[in-house]
Amino acid sequence: MDLSYYMPTKVLMSENVIEKNKSIFGIYGKSALIVTGRNSARACGALDDVINALKSYNISYYIFDKIMPNPTVDVCYLGASIAKENNCDFIIAIGGGSPMDAAKAIAALAKNDVLKDDVFNSSKYHDILPMIFIPTTAGTGSEVTQYSILTDDKNKTKTSISNQLFFPNIALLDAKYMKSLGKATTVNTALDALCHAIESFLSKRNTISSEIFSKEAIKLIASEFNNLKKYDLSIEDREKLLYASTLAGISIAHTSTVVVHVMGYPLTYFRDIDHGRANGLVLVEYLRMVNDIYPSKIDELNKLLNVKSLDELDNIISNLLGEKENITLDEIKMFASNSMQKKNISNSIIDIKEEDIVRMYSNVFLK
Amino acid sequence: MDLSYYMPTKVLMSENVIEKNKSIFGIYGKSALIVTGRNSARACGALDDVINALKSYNISYYIFDKIMPNPTVDVCYLGASIAKENNCDFIIAIGGGSPMDAAKAIAALAKNDVLKDDVFNSSKYHDILPMIFIPTTAGTGSEVTQYSILTDDKNKTKTSISNQLFFPNIALLDAKYMKSLGKATTVNTALDALCHAIESFLSKRNTISSEIFSKEAIKLIASEFNNLKKYDLSIEDREKLLYASTLAGISIAHTSTVVVHVMGYPLTYFRDIDHGRANGLVLVEYLRMVNDIYPSKIDELNKLLNVKSLDELDNIISNLLGEKENITLDEIKMFASNSMQKKNISNSIIDIKEEDIVRMYSNVFLK
Repeated sequence: MDLSYYMPTKVLMSENVIEKNKSIFGIYGKSALIVTGRNSARACGALDDVINALKSYNISYYIFDKIMPNPTVDVCYLGASIAKENNCDFIIAIGGGSPMDAAKAIAALAKNDVLKDDVFNSSKYHDILPMIFIPTTAGTGSEVTQYSILTDDKNKTKTSISNQLFFPNIALLDAKYMKSLGKATTVNTALDALCHAIESFLSKRNTISSEIFSKEAIKLIASEFNNLKKYDLSIEDREKLLYASTLAGISIAHTSTVVVHVMGYPLTYFRDIDHGRANGLVLVEYLRMVNDIYPSKIDELNKLLNVKSLDELDNIISNLLGEKENITLDEIKMFASNSMQKKNISNSIIDIKEEDIVRMYSNVFLK
Repeated sequence: MDLSYYMPTKVLMSENVIEKNKSIFGIYGKSALIVTGRNSARACGALDDVINALKSYNISYYIFDKIMPNPTVDVCYLGASIAKENNCDFIIAIGGGSPMDAAKAIAALAKNDVLKDDVFNSSKYHDILPMIFIPTTAGTGSEVTQYSILTDDKNKTKTSISNQLFFPNIALLDAKYMKSLGKATTVNTALDALCHAIESFLSKRNTISSEIFSKEAIKLIASEFNNLKKYDLSIEDREKLLYASTLAGISIAHTSTVVVHVMGYPLTYFRDIDHGRANGLVLVEYLRMVNDIYPSKIDELNKLLNVKSLDELDNIISNLLGEKENITLDEIKMFASNSMQKKNISNSIIDIKEEDIVRMYSNVFLK
């Protein structure tokens, strides 16, 4: 029995979690950089809650709200320079995967002189500012992983920096911040979390330990399929999805993702398809390939998902996603070639060749 | 949904885990204090494996092998003074719960000037030496908890110091170190782990997050009842028990133990009954009390244990424990009064009064 478990982030989840745990904001120093996107942190109320907590400990703060979806390397360097100029002692990230992933790079670049050419070289980071993370979507799991995934223009894709320093110190989870999310974001982020959990479960690196988290996440998200479809989500449903996305995050912290995410990145990079949606679009095709080699694994997965077959799952996900994008065969070939460059492809529990990727994309977009 | 998760220890489990991960011994400095008991670390081969790893990184070491079962405060101060005299950079614990719990106190006392009267005051510890833990029994879970449980002569019991600094940095798990354990130690430590998991599950502080770990541990240990009884344990069985004890440790790191451990301490302090055995002796009595108030909780537990009733569980555990000690009613009354002083009693999911404790002990020892 070989396993490895490491997830040092302290996770606190409750109603009004920031107010209940505001003393945490006094632990790491007197000056914070708040990293967030343009709107969502304000709209959901999380930014106000953080500012109130900081004020009650007389902590000064600078709000860096320039993080765009699929954040660039440049915005991370800009954030790091602001953190240094303002002598920020710690970083607070508020948002979905984009602000959180960017915040990790900002926290690291503020403490390490790294050339832009080396930004994706994980071994260049030896120190990092402390980080408090507040997710405002239930998908990414970034609050409990060592990954920062940024837009990589050199290689025309999204690329991950993986370093154990990148685990946030604290993750504060409150489902009330998801109440204002629209249906598309809610569905896409739920599908992202589902992909994390399923990819982890169907990874070569899956262990008896990682699957404790992935299986629980799969069951929880599947139990919300109906509510997602009707877009009728109580705060308890939102809590379940948030908790599941964090569990799914813990599972990929141990296994990383596999070919599904690899195939999702070109859809996002070249066609600007939302990250979670991109993964959701191609998920079932991977499962069909796995089913050819390991049918018992898919039987087990179907039980966790409470579906009778992959066709049933396909219907559920297709219904959630709605009309699919038009992608040409030429694009597909280019995306497949691009995908083959990513190392996570080899974590898939089956061997994946370029023609498999072409066929999977084609089944989704050319049928 | 309220939950809190924090377990920062890196856990690595494999065959020959020390040899495979020996670079870990080079991370924390040039001088180590090895904290262990008189014999077991040598007998099982773990000490030799550690020394080989240290030698390959030219790390000097001092072996402090004076830890007795149910370690005293004095032995921890002695260990800390040796760590300081030898300028040890980090601590390596090898053994069962006693060396591991003592090693945490030693690592803390080496970095904090704490008066003996304050040794159990958790707030006195602000820094600690890095710690690498190698369990040689599958029971305590100390390798993944923030607890150091020492003999407390002032209060005639065992008392826990709980501080988040006390989580070891690394836990290295290898079931081969358990192959040389005798039946009594194997059974008692397995029952200790089972009590951890069940107490956590039946704690007021149980959450959807802590029970991920406790439920898995309960299932795994129950699946080994037959092999424990026959004392026919393959290395795979040993691995299951070791993994389960670590999961159970993670669960009590979040909930702490309840009245079962509280009632076990006087049996150990006054009658020198092994810690795991002491807990195993009283476990089912607590379950019967819970069953009166929350029968559905016990139904769920019985399913996890794969037993039809608490009577069936009682038979299994009684068979494992063999003949019970003679304890007089006067002793029982004194133990009950002593138990009522412990704060963990209030973590039990049912209210426990002194007469309940007298009745539970009596049912075990006076029938």
